[in-house]
Amino acid sequence: MMVAATRGPVRVVGTGLLGTSVGLGLRALGVDVVLHDPSRTAVALARDVGAGRPARPEDPEPALVVVAAPPDVTADVVLAELTAHPRAVVTDVASVKRYVLDELRAAGADLHRYVGSHPMAGRERTGPSAAVPDLFLGRPWVIADSGSSTPEALLAVRALAVDLGAVPVTMAADEHDAAVAAVSHVPQVTASLVAARLRGLEDDALGLAGQGLRDVTRIAASDPALWTSILAANAGPVRDVLVALRADLDVVIGALGVADEATGPETVGVGALAAIAQTIAAGNAGVSRIPGKHGGARRPYAQVSVLVPDEPGELARLLVDVGEVGVNLEDLALEHAAGRPVGMAIISVLPGSAEHLEAELTARGWRLVS
Amino acid sequence: MMVAATRGPVRVVGTGLLGTSVGLGLRALGVDVVLHDPSRTAVALARDVGAGRPARPEDPEPALVVVAAPPDVTADVVLAELTAHPRAVVTDVASVKRYVLDELRAAGADLHRYVGSHPMAGRERTGPSAAVPDLFLGRPWVIADSGSSTPEALLAVRALAVDLGAVPVTMAADEHDAAVAAVSHVPQVTASLVAARLRGLEDDALGLAGQGLRDVTRIAASDPALWTSILAANAGPVRDVLVALRADLDVVIGALGVADEATGPETVGVGALAAIAQTIAAGNAGVSRIPGKHGGARRPYAQVSVLVPDEPGELARLLVDVGEVGVNLEDLALEHAAGRPVGMAIISVLPGSAEHLEAELTARGWRLVS
Repeated sequence: MMVAATRGPVRVVGTGLLGTSVGLGLRALGVDVVLHDPSRTAVALARDVGAGRPARPEDPEPALVVVAAPPDVTADVVLAELTAHPRAVVTDVASVKRYVLDELRAAGADLHRYVGSHPMAGRERTGPSAAVPDLFLGRPWVIADSGSSTPEALLAVRALAVDLGAVPVTMAADEHDAAVAAVSHVPQVTASLVAARLRGLEDDALGLAGQGLRDVTRIAASDPALWTSILAANAGPVRDVLVALRADLDVVIGALGVADEATGPETVGVGALAAIAQTIAAGNAGVSRIPGKHGGARRPYAQVSVLVPDEPGELARLLVDVGEVGVNLEDLALEHAAGRPVGMAIISVLPGSAEHLEAELTARGWRLVS
Repeated sequence: MMVAATRGPVRVVGTGLLGTSVGLGLRALGVDVVLHDPSRTAVALARDVGAGRPARPEDPEPALVVVAAPPDVTADVVLAELTAHPRAVVTDVASVKRYVLDELRAAGADLHRYVGSHPMAGRERTGPSAAVPDLFLGRPWVIADSGSSTPEALLAVRALAVDLGAVPVTMAADEHDAAVAAVSHVPQVTASLVAARLRGLEDDALGLAGQGLRDVTRIAASDPALWTSILAANAGPVRDVLVALRADLDVVIGALGVADEATGPETVGVGALAAIAQTIAAGNAGVSRIPGKHGGARRPYAQVSVLVPDEPGELARLLVDVGEVGVNLEDLALEHAAGRPVGMAIISVLPGSAEHLEAELTARGWRLVS
């Protein structure tokens, strides 16, 4: 059994998805966990799934308090915990960090014992019943260093992240907030804006939707209340990115206006076509910077596309064949053909393996698309 | 063998991805196909993959001409083909329809024999070597009815779509252009705009990227030259949607400005939080209208999440088990844990099957996440 670096008892305040998952992960390592939540039902549910025991007045003092509350109430809860447990290290897992830190400073909190943090983990479902001990496995866990925390406090939160299988990443609060604005909050806003434009379409028009639209709008199904709290608490950084994005959008709208007045490509006003091309090229440059599965820069995987009959077991049969060939599947995407009995599996493999895989799959009777 | 409804010879003009795929599909049905392209290399490549034979002066007159050229040259090519082959029906497969029709009208083309069309099919790769006979399988193929085509001409293009496995959808040119602006062209622009904002980030910030960002920006890797041509040719409808989107964006930016000045949720100016929540809720409403795999409104699939060791054959073993349980996999998504030896497979099944599948997989030793 793994030995926990985290010293207990750990007090988890807020037994939603994140708090309960923290409890489950720590309990699996044998750490003593006590649970608290304004909702007694939420505490009972978290206890029932094995995340710890409900807090009682006679509990020993916690060594570490993990506050897992919505961003808008996090500072109040952290402050109360710092006061109630004057020897404990207190961390929070809210998805914005500057807002919480400012509120704590304004309230005169003891920042030596406080370390803001943010595990980059989540699920589409929420609440204690969606919690899993593996939620943080392999995910970045940001430690937002305020400059005021003691080395011991920083170490305690780092140990928590490592115990839960996460990868600790130290950043300043402002740096964190600007980063999540660009990589998480702004994509959420734009996905919602694009999806909102679909409301007025005829069914026929929506029938033309392809995988591109599905990908761009998938996260538009997110919870409005949660996202209002997140966006309001990170309003400044999100606004900064959106203002820059709007400036780029204005260029595109202007160029399209010029193109719309032309009677052909050669009569389009000077610079308009270049502005459109520049927008798409800038997107190429940006997307190429997103790290791939194994971290670092995106690996240039080769893709092998295979037609798969839409019947139970066919995809499995394909992947068994891929496994037997001895090629490691780096990623897998499915494309569906609406209303037809066939789909396409796009298998990503290391470039050196593609040719071998293609030959072997063809020999086994698969229809390749390439 | 299937009998083709399409009468040959069919002349394909433009042997890129779409034209060559049309040739491959028709040849598989035994239809005589002749190929033409300004690039002799492209014709030779298309011939080599089996899409037809290069056009020669002594060829018999074609019954049908399929023009598969970039949007900005499509009208010129259609006009030339209508003139050169005075008894042939001529269609094009450009992704914008009003622009082409207007150019043809202005040039005094014989619109009785012309039918604009647009198969909603594509791949990330381009050119004749990426062509496949199944490219159009199950995809919508828009027949843009100008009101001037003869019933015979409409029937010939409809037969082409059906022969290639596509689902014909009749729409007016304007209706088509407005639809693809919303479901294809605007998502491309916004994906590029979001990705462009990533260029200036530090590596640490990009390390926080999750699946949401990857989905939103996947199509930002598209070809700038092709998309400049498409966007310029559909400038009016794309601009209309983007202007509406910008108005929504302005509301969000305004609300974030108000929220940024507040010291807490209760001091946020009246209406700002509601405006943010309304934006996310409008996205919920829009995304729920996208049809699912089997057409019609999105099916409420149940999702079963399973931890999968990142080793060759493990995913296949899981899917074999799913197949043995007798449950049809409706969709499959993989989530990777950066730098960790485990991933998560999210299996979508019909709601009635989820419980059975979960029980069976657990019994077979899989670790479920739910």
